[in-house]
Amino acid sequence: ASAANPPLNVLVLGGDGIGPEVTAQALRVLRHMQAKHDLAMRIEELPYGNATWRATGHLMPPETHAAVDRADAVLFGAVDSLDRTGMPAEERARGSLLSLRKRLGLFANLRPVRTERALDEVSPFKPRTLAGVDLCFVRELSGGVYYGQPRGIERDADGRRRGVNTHIYDEDQIIRAARFAFALARGRRGVLTSVDKANVMEAGALWRQVVTALHQDEFRDVRLDHMLADTCALMLNRDPKRFDVILTDNLFGDLLSDAAAGLAGSLGLLPSASLSAPRPDGRRRALYEPVHGSAPDIAGKGIANPLAAILSAAQLLRWSAGSEAAAAELERAVTAALEDGARTADIALPGEAVLGTAAMGDAVLARL
Amino acid sequence: ASAANPPLNVLVLGGDGIGPEVTAQALRVLRHMQAKHDLAMRIEELPYGNATWRATGHLMPPETHAAVDRADAVLFGAVDSLDRTGMPAEERARGSLLSLRKRLGLFANLRPVRTERALDEVSPFKPRTLAGVDLCFVRELSGGVYYGQPRGIERDADGRRRGVNTHIYDEDQIIRAARFAFALARGRRGVLTSVDKANVMEAGALWRQVVTALHQDEFRDVRLDHMLADTCALMLNRDPKRFDVILTDNLFGDLLSDAAAGLAGSLGLLPSASLSAPRPDGRRRALYEPVHGSAPDIAGKGIANPLAAILSAAQLLRWSAGSEAAAAELERAVTAALEDGARTADIALPGEAVLGTAAMGDAVLARL
Ligand SMILES: CC(C)[C@H](C(=O)O)[C@@H](O)C(=O)O
Ligand SMILES: CC(C)[C@H](C(=O)O)[C@@H](O)C(=O)O
Repeated sequence: ASAANPPLNVLVLGGDGIGPEVTAQALRVLRHMQAKHDLAMRIEELPYGNATWRATGHLMPPETHAAVDRADAVLFGAVDSLDRTGMPAEERARGSLLSLRKRLGLFANLRPVRTERALDEVSPFKPRTLAGVDLCFVRELSGGVYYGQPRGIERDADGRRRGVNTHIYDEDQIIRAARFAFALARGRRGVLTSVDKANVMEAGALWRQVVTALHQDEFRDVRLDHMLADTCALMLNRDPKRFDVILTDNLFGDLLSDAAAGLAGSLGLLPSASLSAPRPDGRRRALYEPVHGSAPDIAGKGIANPLAAILSAAQLLRWSAGSEAAAAELERAVTAALEDGARTADIALPGEAVLGTAAMGDAVLARL
Repeated sequence: ASAANPPLNVLVLGGDGIGPEVTAQALRVLRHMQAKHDLAMRIEELPYGNATWRATGHLMPPETHAAVDRADAVLFGAVDSLDRTGMPAEERARGSLLSLRKRLGLFANLRPVRTERALDEVSPFKPRTLAGVDLCFVRELSGGVYYGQPRGIERDADGRRRGVNTHIYDEDQIIRAARFAFALARGRRGVLTSVDKANVMEAGALWRQVVTALHQDEFRDVRLDHMLADTCALMLNRDPKRFDVILTDNLFGDLLSDAAAGLAGSLGLLPSASLSAPRPDGRRRALYEPVHGSAPDIAGKGIANPLAAILSAAQLLRWSAGSEAAAAELERAVTAALEDGARTADIALPGEAVLGTAAMGDAVLARL
């Protein structure tokens, strides 16, 4: 690591439920790739989550807060839904996933969905629908109805309650996400589908105008399709291979990427990467997390599928460590393990032999 | 028809694209059932749509406006996307589907999704996923981000544009939709899934509170599940038979019902019914329309699938004409036609013989 390129500060937050279990496997794999590809990283693991709150009174203890400030990349496991924990609202607000996204300046949430031939039988879809699916969502992560003001539960003149949230996008937010998505599409199959409800929402009409103008100005070599969000929800089932990169706002991306997750056969296979704008040193800050949650029902049993976490580590190798070679190698190892029949419970057919979380980690490591 | 129960005023608006073609078949079937079951209806057909605007300068001509005012039930075909037609904004606003929904006081949009065994091969899903799917969305249709104020494209202090829409629900709107959904579930399998994003939206948190309270007060015999909208998007693919009635807001219902439409194999099979609160005479005003749109690419060719329109007429028989017997009979005739191999192009496998729009209408009529 030169002075110009100091080692990457990686913060590991296993969090709650199955988070620590799957993250442990991702970390084993990450350390292996770090050594093999001679990557300059400094890795620290710190407590975070609902269990941490119960033990320490902090969702995110002070030393974890400090570590977030210096982290280049966070490898995140999962966090429980915090609304029924009894945790004070301020503690939740200071340490939640949303506040972490905001604090790290994350604006582009990448959710690749690639179907694995070996899992054709597992998916609810027919093989003909699954063949060749290789798409990636770019979900705008900093704006929209998740953050807009005013918000809250008010009372009207008659004392009746009214819930209000505000959906706002300014053109700079749209441009930033769209530019990222166009550039990503350019490095893939060259097709961007931009999703909105321009027919009923002015924020969607602006979204469409801004994306169209950017296309004209900078990305004419990429094919741009506009699609209504409801049509996209349908098309993800009907003809998913038509998609390459799908650009969405924060809320539509949340729903549509989960709709697409059904294609893969299990949430346990789906990684994500969330990126900030480049800092002055050219690096983006980032958070990597499986799309799945803390899955309290299977936590502590050693049976969770670690592949989403492991593939999130591959995203870290790609986007933060800058090693496409290491990322692609890890992704190939996952495919090979699946092709050789390695299965956790979520992706096993009735009667198939099942591996635990650590054994699936072994299966991937053995192929690296 | 007694004085207490005057004939049902049915207004038929075929609209644009394939709308008139599929509506014509629905109307044939409706008239047949009217005669067979001796139902008191007065049916009138009037011009509406983009083609009407081009011919007359009105999206909805004055006589159509007047007919809407006296209609008990509207049988609607489809309308083109009006944003690229050059139609003045006021004309669009006065005659749009959204304004029609508002004017008729529609608040509950029912979208049943039932898979037909005969179409197992056509669907992108495996038969094991499809078996036994029989669910119905109740989408709140009068509120949410479709209507909330403020809305528009503004400029901030620096002159940058900003798109704003406001998502609002008051408790009365939530109660009205939820009460309808609970009652519907009670007459079905007794399970209601209420969908929100209570974890990130206050309007969703209020939604959840209000639905929970109503459940406690009036519907303890119905099982109530709360589900996050993203999880629902996933579960519609993973395990759709778990659902009976799904209660959603306006926007989530738009996306999720289209996501579920993939299960049926074609949009061409999916009807909808939108209902108002009961009027003083006990009747609800209603609008019936296929979930599909105007499909300009296949309009005028006589190949569109009329089953969604015909099944929308079945909904009319059920909800407006009050004849469950006639509705169920028509639905069975559609299933029988499919089981006997009747196929329009959208639901045919390669090499299968294909019927045109009118011939599919014949196939249903022959089984009534
Ligand atoms: C946990 C929740 C706030 C989050 C979101 O809605 O963004 C999750 O659903 C996701 O998709 O990452
Ligand atoms: C045409 C459009 C306004 C409409 C909606 O979003 O409600 C349509 O998508 C629907 O689902 O009926």
